Parts: sequence; structure tokens; C-alpha cells
Amino acid sequence: MDVYERSLKKHYEWAGKYEITLRAPLETLEDLALCYTPGVSRACLEIAADKAKSFELTRRHNTVAVVTDGTAVLGLGDIGPEAAMPVMEGKCALFKAFADIDATPICLGTKDPDEIVKIVTALSKTYGGINLEDISAPRCFEIERRLIESCEIPVFHDDQHGTAIVAGAALLNALRVVNKRLSDVRIVINGAGSAGIAIAKFLLDMGAGDVVCVGRHGTLVGGEVYPNPAHTEIAKITNKNKIKGTLKDAMTGADVFIGVSVPKVVTQDMIGVMAEKPIVFPLANPVPEITREEAIQAGAAVVGTGASNQPNQINNVLAFPGIFRGALDARARDITPAMQRAAAVALSELVSDKELNADYILPNPLDKRVAKAVAAAVYDCAKKQL
Amino acid sequence: MDVYERSLKKHYEWAGKYEITLRAPLETLEDLALCYTPGVSRACLEIAADKAKSFELTRRHNTVAVVTDGTAVLGLGDIGPEAAMPVMEGKCALFKAFADIDATPICLGTKDPDEIVKIVTALSKTYGGINLEDISAPRCFEIERRLIESCEIPVFHDDQHGTAIVAGAALLNALRVVNKRLSDVRIVINGAGSAGIAIAKFLLDMGAGDVVCVGRHGTLVGGEVYPNPAHTEIAKITNKNKIKGTLKDAMTGADVFIGVSVPKVVTQDMIGVMAEKPIVFPLANPVPEITREEAIQAGAAVVGTGASNQPNQINNVLAFPGIFRGALDARARDITPAMQRAAAVALSELVSDKELNADYILPNPLDKRVAKAVAAAVYDCAKKQL
Repeated sequence: MDVYERSLKKHYEWAGKYEITLRAPLETLEDLALCYTPGVSRACLEIAADKAKSFELTRRHNTVAVVTDGTAVLGLGDIGPEAAMPVMEGKCALFKAFADIDATPICLGTKDPDEIVKIVTALSKTYGGINLEDISAPRCFEIERRLIESCEIPVFHDDQHGTAIVAGAALLNALRVVNKRLSDVRIVINGAGSAGIAIAKFLLDMGAGDVVCVGRHGTLVGGEVYPNPAHTEIAKITNKNKIKGTLKDAMTGADVFIGVSVPKVVTQDMIGVMAEKPIVFPLANPVPEITREEAIQAGAAVVGTGASNQPNQINNVLAFPGIFRGALDARARDITPAMQRAAAVALSELVSDKELNADYILPNPLDKRVAKAVAAAVYDCAKKQL
Repeated sequence: MDVYERSLKKHYEWAGKYEITLRAPLETLEDLALCYTPGVSRACLEIAADKAKSFELTRRHNTVAVVTDGTAVLGLGDIGPEAAMPVMEGKCALFKAFADIDATPICLGTKDPDEIVKIVTALSKTYGGINLEDISAPRCFEIERRLIESCEIPVFHDDQHGTAIVAGAALLNALRVVNKRLSDVRIVINGAGSAGIAIAKFLLDMGAGDVVCVGRHGTLVGGEVYPNPAHTEIAKITNKNKIKGTLKDAMTGADVFIGVSVPKVVTQDMIGVMAEKPIVFPLANPVPEITREEAIQAGAAVVGTGASNQPNQINNVLAFPGIFRGALDARARDITPAMQRAAAVALSELVSDKELNADYILPNPLDKRVAKAVAAAVYDCAKKQL
């Protein structure tokens, strides 16, 4: 059985990957009277008098809703809310396992951005944070932007920012390996969906020299108007030299390739035309833009992929548990760009100079230090901003 | 410290009354690959091809959302979604403790019935059932009716039907004690909110001789048009003799009094004018319409209250865990009136003829047989209807 069949078998056995357990005992009539009526009314009145007490007297301080509309699930596309649930349950399991956060899945039976914004805004009174997940671009940009405005708790679209933070941390360390500076390099990002655009913005925000985004029809160039308004916007701040053309044109002389696109679109020739000691992150999953072996053979100095059975796995689980842990503990209203940069730096710093090499630019996803270090950095940054 | 202060202290200690635990291990990279990417995509595809599989491959088969808008919380009124959370968390804890159901609280930041219907309909793709809670009347009637239409999973407003089912079971057994038949008795219900109206409908549905509802301004009489349309409607099917007047007028010659109103509105005189061997259920909580002691002194043959430290506690926890357990296990689309009647009868039958007496008409709320017996009756009824 391959990993897919093994997983399906396990899903039937598990019959759900999470469950609820009690933190309050319910054995005696006294327990009932304290946990529920009549005693519970006292806690209600306390919160009614001061809403902030909801973060002390209920589980809110430790909860995150993992919210999707099922429109962009993994590489499977718009499979609907019911079919998205296995991913959302898995994400919730990761939140608990890596950061002791009580996350619950919410799969919405609507694709209307206005409705999603209204629903999640109404839900925000229940939770301590909102993790948006697998919502298709460009809808996800507007939905996230409006929710950050309307909600008093952090709203974070992990497909964008989680991916950007981990790719950013990986790039910081890959640059240490090849001895280049972020401010000097030109980075090509193939795939101008939510992850690609978020990575571009984040790397520029971190101080990258230049970023060139490549969509289905070639490089995005400032001044052009594209059918997807997010493309028009990102083109304005990327591609300094206004490179027009194909992915190969963009890659010519580039220092870094990051793929968040589709399988097998990068050839060894394309690696060959990059600058010396190229860094290559083909992140399409499960089949990457180019295999690790092919990339190395063609001269790549550092390669990172999404695969768990290869070195340098660029996996969101390195970021989101710690980010929400830090944000919840700081009771931050938002997860700001500064908090995201702090997370990427903290993640990169978990690899010491001594450990660092081309096959070890990121900690292992199971490394228990990761969420703690990311949480601490995010917490400190949030507290400085408050 | 009284029960309220003890409860508040515990709420600070608990810092939330539930948490999430994992049913899937997350210790190794293989675990990660099975629980999450890439393996999880196989379970997604299985559900995408057949949505019913969401009840096998995810936790949906065992989940209930406890949904409120915080407008009618206990006797506290409209205290808002944040302050409603301690009650909703308590309810979720009861679901788990008594029926092993994984219930999660949802406190909505909107009071607009249209929005609530849209939100809960969208949420219904996530859960196996919806328990509406502490939503004010008459909004709750419309909200529930529309959600039963729009959702493919059971929607149940516990304040209405849970209360009616337990009061109904208590009444069946109280009538056994005083040797009267349900079809012969006249029942006065004081308090024409969601619980009062639901009890009236349910008891008529069970075969009660007559029910007279009493609101703030006196008895509800058929043919009148009241500001609350639910009053106009219930008046059409109740109060056969068109009794006009006060609560005392209604109680004169009545066999049963059920109060779901406010403290201390019933006097011993009013008990004195009832028929012989009157049954008195003053359910206002924590302070009832008349105390148990006063009612007995005035001639009540059987008294039931909401208090946990007195005999005959009429407590919703005797119904809702088993009702949802049965409905989830049968994968019922609705919790029909027939299923509700079956629940009441099953609950009443847990008290044997030998055990039955004026001080023991209902099982103890902690009795572990209750949820099982109610679930079995609801399950069987659902399967017959399917």
C-alpha cells in the first residue's frame, strides 16, 4: 500500500482525527452545579461586565478556528466543504500536537466572499484566533483583508503567510550556505496564486533584492493590467528590470527559484542558466517542479522541497503552531508583518552555524524546539508593538 | 462560598471546560504523512466522490455544534456571545460526559435571524447535528423552523424541546402517582416564552386533555391577536374553554401547573384552588414560582423543580445527550415529534412501578442508564421513519 492507501485505511480506523475531552469533572451533582446551572451564571455575569474576561473564564485564550470553504484544497481544487474536512482535522491535530492549541475545523457551505466575511466575523466572538485555509485566490486576499479589519482576534491565511515564512526562513539559511546576501539576490517565483504572491511580498518585506513572479502566461510586469487584480498589484512592486517572457527568461541569471505551481515545469536547462550556486525550492506537492536529484545534477547548490522523505522539507507546520501560540499568549489583535518576520528569523536561527549545510537548512518538522522558539519570537514582537 | 462563588473560582482554575485531544498519533514523519499531507488527500477524494463518506472518514458522525447568539442566556437575558460561552462550554461538557458526543460551542456575534440562518446553514456542512441554545423568543421559532428546512442534519432548540420532553416524562410519571390520565387533565403553563410554548405543543401532541397558556397579561385565548405571533398561534390550539383572566383564574380547577416564568408568582392560595391531588412543576431557576415546601403544604400531590438538591429535578440533561446520540447514530435528518415523544416515554419508563412515588418520578441526572435508554428509543423511532 502506498502512503495514500495507508492514510485512507487509517482514516477509516480513526473515524475522525480529534475529539473533545473535559477539563471540568462531571461526576457529582456538585460538579453539575459548578460546571453548568446554576453556578455557571456567575462566570457569565463576570464576562458580561468585562468581555476581556472571556479569555480567562473560557477556553477562548487557547482556541483557533481552522476555516475553509473547500475551494482550493491541497492540489485538489474546489472539492467542497465536506471533502475538505480531512485536511482541516489534520491541521487541527497539528495545532494540538505542536503548540497545545485547541483548534476546531469549520468547513463552510458557501463560496460567497461577502457571506464568508460575515460568517467568520460573527464566529470571531467564539475563538482566540482564525486560521484561514485552502480558500482559492484571488478571493482569499479580499476575504483575509476584510476579516483582519472586522475581527478583534488574529486572522491568518496560512497558505499565504505560513508558506512565506517557512520559505523565507529556508532562504535565509540557504543564502548563508552559498554566502550571498538577501539584498543582492534576484528571486524567481513560479506560480502566482496565493502562496506565490505572499512569498513575493514577504521576501521583499524581508529585504530581498528583487523578485520576479511568473504566472501561467509568463512573467508579471509592472504597468500591465491582468485579469487577476492581485497580479496587477504584485507586478507593481516586483520585477525591477521589467523582464518580459517565459519562466526560462526569468530564471536566466537568477539566484533563487521558488516554485509553488505545478509538477515538472522546470527543466535541468533552466537550472543551468541561473546564476552560480543557485538555490532551488520546487515546492509543488507531491510532485515538484523538478526533482531534487535533477536539480542537484544540473548544478543547484541548495534544494528544498515539500517532501517529508528528503532533506530541507519546507513544511508549514514549522510556522503556524508557534505563530498562533505566540499571538494567543500575547493576546495580539493581529499577526503583523513584523511578527511574521520575527517568526522566520527565529525559525532560521534554530539551525546553528555548525549544523548548517546544503542538506540541513531547516529544523525537522517534528523538532519540539520549533514551535517554542517561533512562539517566543512572535510573542516578544507582539508585546513590543502593543 | 455559595455555589456561584465556588463556580467562579473553578472557572478561573479550569480556564475553559473542554479541550481537543488527538485520535491520530503525530509522533513520526510517517504519522504526519498519514494524518496530513500528502496521504490525507486520499480521504478528501473519497468524500468528494461521495459526500456521505464525511460521516465515516471524519469526526462528523459524532459532532454537534452548540450554537447561541447570547440573547436569552439562562435567566440573564441578552448578555452577548462572549458572556454566553461558559454556558455553551458547560453544555458541550455534558454532551461528552453523558453521551460521548464531541460538541463544540459557537457563540455568534449577530442577532439578525436572517444572518443566523445563513451562518448555521453554512456551518451545517461541518457537523453531525446543531443544538440551538439560549436564543430569545419569538426569534428562536423562526430560526429553528428555517434551519430545519435548510440543513441536512438535525437541528434542535433544546430550550424548547429538551425542556418539553423532560417535563413531559415527569408529567407522565406524576400522573401515574396520582392515578389520572393525560387525556383527562387540564394543564396550566405559566410563561409563554420558548419553553412554555414548546411544552404546550408537546403535551397536546402527547395527548393532553387541555392546556392553558398564561402570559404576562393573563391567559392566551384563541381568536385573539397578540403582539407576539407565537402567542396568537398557540392560543388557537389551547384553552378549549376560552378561559379569560389571570393565572389564578386559569389554575382554578386545573390538574397540573407548570411554571417556566419568574420567581414567586404562585401563592399557596392558587395551589388551593386547583383540582384534587394537583401536580406542580415550578421550574423557574434558581428561584421557583413557589417553593417545593410551600406547594406541598398547600396540598400539591407531586412537585418537581429545577433544583438539583430536591427530589424530582426536571433537568434537560436527562434528554438532549441521548436524543442527539440516537439521532447521530441513526444518521437522522431531523429530530421529529415522534422521536421526541419516544424520548419522553423512554425516560419515564426508567422509573419502575416499584420505585415510583411522589418523590421519585424521574431518574437522577447522573444516572448512566438515561442517555442510553433515550438514545435507543430515538434511534429505533428514527429507523422506523426512514
